[in-house]
Amino acid sequence: MTRQLFELVGADPEIRFSPYSWRARMALLHKGIDAKSRPWRFTEKEALAFSGQDKVPVLVDGDTVVSDSWQIALYLERAYPDAPALFGGAQGEAMARFIAHWCDGVMLPGMITLLVHDIWRCLDPQSQAYFRESREKRFGRKLEDIVAGREERVDTFRKALRPMRMTLAEYPYLAGEAPGYADYAAFGGFMWARCISHFELLEPDDPVHAWRERMLDLYYGYARKAKRVAA
Amino acid sequence: MTRQLFELVGADPEIRFSPYSWRARMALLHKGIDAKSRPWRFTEKEALAFSGQDKVPVLVDGDTVVSDSWQIALYLERAYPDAPALFGGAQGEAMARFIAHWCDGVMLPGMITLLVHDIWRCLDPQSQAYFRESREKRFGRKLEDIVAGREERVDTFRKALRPMRMTLAEYPYLAGEAPGYADYAAFGGFMWARCISHFELLEPDDPVHAWRERMLDLYYGYARKAKRVAA
Repeated sequence: MTRQLFELVGADPEIRFSPYSWRARMALLHKGIDAKSRPWRFTEKEALAFSGQDKVPVLVDGDTVVSDSWQIALYLERAYPDAPALFGGAQGEAMARFIAHWCDGVMLPGMITLLVHDIWRCLDPQSQAYFRESREKRFGRKLEDIVAGREERVDTFRKALRPMRMTLAEYPYLAGEAPGYADYAAFGGFMWARCISHFELLEPDDPVHAWRERMLDLYYGYARKAKRVAA
Repeated sequence: MTRQLFELVGADPEIRFSPYSWRARMALLHKGIDAKSRPWRFTEKEALAFSGQDKVPVLVDGDTVVSDSWQIALYLERAYPDAPALFGGAQGEAMARFIAHWCDGVMLPGMITLLVHDIWRCLDPQSQAYFRESREKRFGRKLEDIVAGREERVDTFRKALRPMRMTLAEYPYLAGEAPGYADYAAFGGFMWARCISHFELLEPDDPVHAWRERMLDLYYGYARKAKRVAA
């Protein structure tokens, strides 16, 4: 049986940059479960028709098709209960969901206004047209204008990471002594940023920076080895 | 052995309004552990000297003295492992800490700019002088000016609750199917607000509102029965 994970890629199919695809990938690594990477681009909607929706990540595990990073995590935890726990129980599951929602509503929106033009630069021409049009419509501004002044604005982003920073000053991971889904939820955003940009989001003495280094080292440095756009 | 919990009170010693004291009180109820309430006011610093610091809550459990709501929660979880779990394991502990930090850094600062004048109104005269001076210094404005326009600003507060709202749209409690410390961390803020104010923080159709009702009903309606300031 070949498991497959459909992951968002840029013009270069080795550059994977969806924060949600990274969550699913890290959850698979945590469980020790292999899944072949299936590169997917924004405009290839029909290639996902079998999943009944049009977004990645999509996990195909035998006859089971699961889309949405959170649903993939729930599926893995239930289908592979003997592999290391992503949540550590029912309390942990709901709290990890809170942290994922915080990432979606605070961290990622903060990142996008710093990095949206870097993303565009990494896309294939067809995706570039789609991406520019949809994002400029959403923000009501040109991509170049959205990221303007980011060197000054990055401090606002850093301040918003306070709950994460405070926790990581006390625990090595958001899930405590070892990484868990809460960490992957947050790390997905940083991997998205890392793969498509060299803009530094964190100060070197930030506990979040040290945590990101630890996360990059997990699973034989899997994430650290992931291809990045040229500087 | 008489356990005691030092809790912040207003001019009326039955009005308990520290979000942190409420966290400790709810954690005790969760564990099924009784502790006599010891009313304490802002200016009674010397009454806490035995604890080596000057803030409530302070829990006295036999020969053990624990201050700080988070330390009290950790203490209770370790000292009473057979009572219902506050965290549900090591992953849950760190994630509950994240949620408590989010409450401290996002929820409570949002509430204070809406309610700081209501708090002042509930204090005894000596505490009023201390409170007005320290808070006006912190905010650089008069208490009356800090809360000005709160009917319009409450929407910003509500928007900031998004990670909590999204989670509570999927789970009855922040800790999943049953309440846990994550819930008490957040509920402490709402009890603080409830005891000293009748300003409505939530819209009636907000999942956070329904959750707050469930929290008020816990432990035979303990929190619902807590004395509030007159409307």
